[in-house]
Amino acid sequence: MDVDQGIVDLLGVLAYGELSAFDRMSEDARAAPTLAGRAALSAMAAAEMGHYARIERFLAERGARIEDAMRPFIGHFDTWHASTAPRSWLESLVKAYVGDGLAADLYREIADWLNEPERTLVLDVLADTGHSAFAEREVQAAIEHDRTVRDRLALWGRRLLGEALTQAQYVVAERDQLTELIVTGTGDLAGIAALFRRLQQQHGKRMAALGLG
Amino acid sequence: MDVDQGIVDLLGVLAYGELSAFDRMSEDARAAPTLAGRAALSAMAAAEMGHYARIERFLAERGARIEDAMRPFIGHFDTWHASTAPRSWLESLVKAYVGDGLAADLYREIADWLNEPERTLVLDVLADTGHSAFAEREVQAAIEHDRTVRDRLALWGRRLLGEALTQAQYVVAERDQLTELIVTGTGDLAGIAALFRRLQQQHGKRMAALGLG
Repeated sequence: MDVDQGIVDLLGVLAYGELSAFDRMSEDARAAPTLAGRAALSAMAAAEMGHYARIERFLAERGARIEDAMRPFIGHFDTWHASTAPRSWLESLVKAYVGDGLAADLYREIADWLNEPERTLVLDVLADTGHSAFAEREVQAAIEHDRTVRDRLALWGRRLLGEALTQAQYVVAERDQLTELIVTGTGDLAGIAALFRRLQQQHGKRMAALGLG
Repeated sequence: MDVDQGIVDLLGVLAYGELSAFDRMSEDARAAPTLAGRAALSAMAAAEMGHYARIERFLAERGARIEDAMRPFIGHFDTWHASTAPRSWLESLVKAYVGDGLAADLYREIADWLNEPERTLVLDVLADTGHSAFAEREVQAAIEHDRTVRDRLALWGRRLLGEALTQAQYVVAERDQLTELIVTGTGDLAGIAALFRRLQQQHGKRMAALGLG
């Protein structure tokens, strides 16, 4: 295999993140109250598979199977999704928006640690986003005159992040070469803590953009 | 609106065909027996949304809303999907393969009747296919040593086509301007019958390619 195990792990995390996001968003799209909403969330789901295909090709060119790369992380993602199953259309939209944003922030951080050609791969995947204007509009309209809905969704956003960080810490703790890659990338163990803090801050800004800050 | 109602109807049929295929395939992907199968069917589903986005943009540029264009055809597609809900992974794969192939044949026929710029739109959407090699491999491997599975899937393929043609005839009968476009395109009412025959022949070839001929 023509690529470090730490990189394979990292790409496996990203790939299963995409595949499982596709899975959840496509299911949530079915519960959309309008045809436009259904199409918008379906399009967000479909974009994940475009990212997935790039990672799959990159790994295949280096003799690594994407299924093997993803396998160690399936449990953590599935646990996250099970513990954050949306109970309404608005919760689905907030989850899609927050999840996509968190992934983009993570991709951006990761790109800084990598050499070529991995850096270009990660930046390419990151560039193909911007499907979330619909979620912003819908959530903002829904909370404009409803304080209760606003408060509930704000709480929901905090829970999404909390559960994601919990699972992320398990992943980092379990995979030695991935940990090494992250420690080297961020500088040291304090660097990992700083990374998590930055992700939390960016999440806060994103919630504010939805009107949930 | 800067486009004929017959064309809007036609694009509405194609668009809802894509959106509902996305919906069914993404649900069926969840029941895949392997991670590779799940990713392959998810990728086929995602490709539908790429087609959908092109039709949406084309209509929007001409002042037509894709939701309005699709609405008259939702019932027929949903009836088709409900009457052909797969009961196994192999039935899901055959349906995805047959549905994609039938859509491609239909796009090819339609392109012949259209003027620019509609013709280019339809040919562009058609060009972005070729996600079905996985389905061919899986089905061929499954039936190689199992005559019973082979016979059941052959019957399934015939049912998929039969139910599709039934719904297609309702659609043609209900929409005057769409009927007119098809009659003009195919020459006359006998031309419509010939079109249906060609679709049946091409379906037969496709079943043979799966080993189900």
